[in-house]
Amino acid sequence: MKAKKANTAPPKGTRDFLPVDVKRREYVTGIIRQVYEAHGFEPLETPTFERLDTLLGKYGEEGDQLVFKILHRGQPMVDGIRDASKYLAGEAAIITGRSGETAPGAEKLLADMGLRYDLTVPLARVVAEYQGQLPAIWRRYQIQPVWRADTPGKGRFREFYQCDVDIVGARELLVEAEVCGAVSECMRRLGFRDFELKINHRGLLRAFIEIAGIPAEKETEAIVAIDKLDKIGAGGVRAELTAKGISPASQDELMRLISVKSASELQLEHLAGKAALAEISRVLELSKNTPAAEHIKFDPTLARGLGYYTGCIFELAVKDLAGSLGGGGRYDGLVGMFLGRDIPACGFSLGLERILVVMEERKMFPERTAGAEVMVVATDEKDLERAVGVAYRLREAGRRVELMPKVEKPGKARKSADERGVPNVVLLFPDRPELNLWSKTEPERTDRFVAESELSASLS
Amino acid sequence: MKAKKANTAPPKGTRDFLPVDVKRREYVTGIIRQVYEAHGFEPLETPTFERLDTLLGKYGEEGDQLVFKILHRGQPMVDGIRDASKYLAGEAAIITGRSGETAPGAEKLLADMGLRYDLTVPLARVVAEYQGQLPAIWRRYQIQPVWRADTPGKGRFREFYQCDVDIVGARELLVEAEVCGAVSECMRRLGFRDFELKINHRGLLRAFIEIAGIPAEKETEAIVAIDKLDKIGAGGVRAELTAKGISPASQDELMRLISVKSASELQLEHLAGKAALAEISRVLELSKNTPAAEHIKFDPTLARGLGYYTGCIFELAVKDLAGSLGGGGRYDGLVGMFLGRDIPACGFSLGLERILVVMEERKMFPERTAGAEVMVVATDEKDLERAVGVAYRLREAGRRVELMPKVEKPGKARKSADERGVPNVVLLFPDRPELNLWSKTEPERTDRFVAESELSASLS
Repeated sequence: MKAKKANTAPPKGTRDFLPVDVKRREYVTGIIRQVYEAHGFEPLETPTFERLDTLLGKYGEEGDQLVFKILHRGQPMVDGIRDASKYLAGEAAIITGRSGETAPGAEKLLADMGLRYDLTVPLARVVAEYQGQLPAIWRRYQIQPVWRADTPGKGRFREFYQCDVDIVGARELLVEAEVCGAVSECMRRLGFRDFELKINHRGLLRAFIEIAGIPAEKETEAIVAIDKLDKIGAGGVRAELTAKGISPASQDELMRLISVKSASELQLEHLAGKAALAEISRVLELSKNTPAAEHIKFDPTLARGLGYYTGCIFELAVKDLAGSLGGGGRYDGLVGMFLGRDIPACGFSLGLERILVVMEERKMFPERTAGAEVMVVATDEKDLERAVGVAYRLREAGRRVELMPKVEKPGKARKSADERGVPNVVLLFPDRPELNLWSKTEPERTDRFVAESELSASLS
Repeated sequence: MKAKKANTAPPKGTRDFLPVDVKRREYVTGIIRQVYEAHGFEPLETPTFERLDTLLGKYGEEGDQLVFKILHRGQPMVDGIRDASKYLAGEAAIITGRSGETAPGAEKLLADMGLRYDLTVPLARVVAEYQGQLPAIWRRYQIQPVWRADTPGKGRFREFYQCDVDIVGARELLVEAEVCGAVSECMRRLGFRDFELKINHRGLLRAFIEIAGIPAEKETEAIVAIDKLDKIGAGGVRAELTAKGISPASQDELMRLISVKSASELQLEHLAGKAALAEISRVLELSKNTPAAEHIKFDPTLARGLGYYTGCIFELAVKDLAGSLGGGGRYDGLVGMFLGRDIPACGFSLGLERILVVMEERKMFPERTAGAEVMVVATDEKDLERAVGVAYRLREAGRRVELMPKVEKPGKARKSADERGVPNVVLLFPDRPELNLWSKTEPERTDRFVAESELSASLS
């Protein structure tokens, strides 16, 4: 026995989920799972860690830095330390710096794997690996945690769940409509009425950037800046564009283009831009008969930070939450990075934690108990074996039963059940064949003796 | 587009679970979850990684080496490389060595966290952290993956699931009976009839070791040797005992003691040994009215490798599988390592992967399909929107529906459904209000036109 209490908090940015938390999470993922399956999606699960070469280079430079890396084991680690130390001595300028800045060169010498950063890259790897075993058009869903070595904050964690749906293998825009329909149905079934599903198109953003006269090599930087409009406002976006060396005239034109209220306001001559706009219109049209109908809305300011999107992009929002509940889009090039030939794909990722935050604030959870319905208690040592039998017959009848491991006095047992929210207490008394049943029957508890054969039916 | 295919296999020792795999795993964990809840256990989930100081020193030296460690980030990593390099230079003898041997000193300089190694240590941390929020006697279950940097082999993985039940806060032996009952009921509900639940007691093994005249400081080594009896036989155990410097006379006596067939054969004078034997007998008695009754059996050779057990120990086995399907026992000291005061606990861990292996070999899975029941297909572009509507009405009626994103010819659509095992195909033809339904009705497919209002009821 130690004298001092150890640090027993969960690691920074992670959480322990006690029973009530687990039940709430299962309530939400249960609905999402059911909706995804109704849409013909099949479940996939991938390993918690991936080789670093699978993960790196897919999420942009910032993303690479946020991947948790797993240390080499054994001799490779010893070799890694030697190499990293040399690297450090020779290229100290790259590695040292403010705390929080990572040292990618040294990391690759010391680590071989990284924790899953999202569910899209593992999907792309799986599609490349199991070609021939998977249907040509594959609908998969995946509900698993991902990890990012980010600075934790309110509603932002280092370990969090994503609930993804993707359709792989078809370029048709009905794919976009199906994905948006599935996500909207999840929201509807969870009890949301006021959500908005924003849609835009990478091709349209690219056209805007061309029309505004911004050089192609600054496209990514411009998109990343627009993506922050929600958080930093138009002034902030302009400041960032200025910092990237984009002229005031280009900024004016770009801001004008992304601020149109509807597709019809845009009188584009730009061919690719027109094609992108036509795709958005078609998705809106195909969504008319889906649960997305009243929620999907064109938003030219929507950008999405991730580099791999190639077509339509989406984001899900509710009024009283800054940021989004999820996002997605078409990424026709990602599978090709693994397979060597492109396979089109489009999907959406729902963020479980933010959905839970909003549902909690709005009290959208049905009342649920995680624990037992009945507590069975022997009041005397010689009734313990009989109590075991009573507990098992109730379990056979489908009840969740907690058997008190100690002999307990009636008052103490009832108090303990009350505190725990267990609605029924069954007490065994020596030499008395009937059982005492103390039940929650609003507004009070009732206390009576019943034969064991009537017990299950008598529970509240 | 890249020309070459990347390495897309899952990392060594891990697996991708395609839809059929996920469904089988969910079938098994669903039953286990239900049985655990019927026994009044509540779900807990803990983070994937823990601080290294939480994990290390709990599993023995070998265990510590098998923990996957997560590399420091930013400046702490840079500092860690410098320190590890110095450590390496000064104490090279400790660190270098055959490949596969780890360097614990250097590891602690480079890593701050490790992947979950089992579900028992996180439980002990949680019990210490949330004192006051948890009931005095707490029944929790936990079904999550764990990771061990072991050499992968047949049925042995680096990422695998455990399904744990534990009761924390009670010393009474009814706890042991409840845990054994829950595990036996899981096995029974999964369809196993021939399993054996072995029971022994650490106190009895300790008594054997004392009676055999083996010095107390060699107790752990002797227990670890006995634990291997299944795998290496009596000769192997003796060789290991000899290697640890244990005399032939002590070996004879120890082997004689552990080879008794029943508790009554042991005429122990040893006080603690007698008490341990009495505890085993009481657990057997209390198990009479539980699903463990016909399966629980005293086995004096059972040892269990983990260091933290203090009382009864268990192991679950089936005839045609070497090794076990799970194990557990009482560990009254582990929570104290975190909390500073002891809290008794006892539990059992079912190994999901090995259960799956046996169920697969014995074909114990019900036939299940992961995918859609209906495929809806437009045969002409102008029917796409109508097809969306048909799909959604079937989904509203509770069907799992795959909507074909492309316009498709009837023959091709039917062939694709057949290959995928989708039993119904609904085809839309232009200017024809009825829908064509092609259904699997053994022994053949039927092909007819139905009104949309009759569609859901007409599916096979």
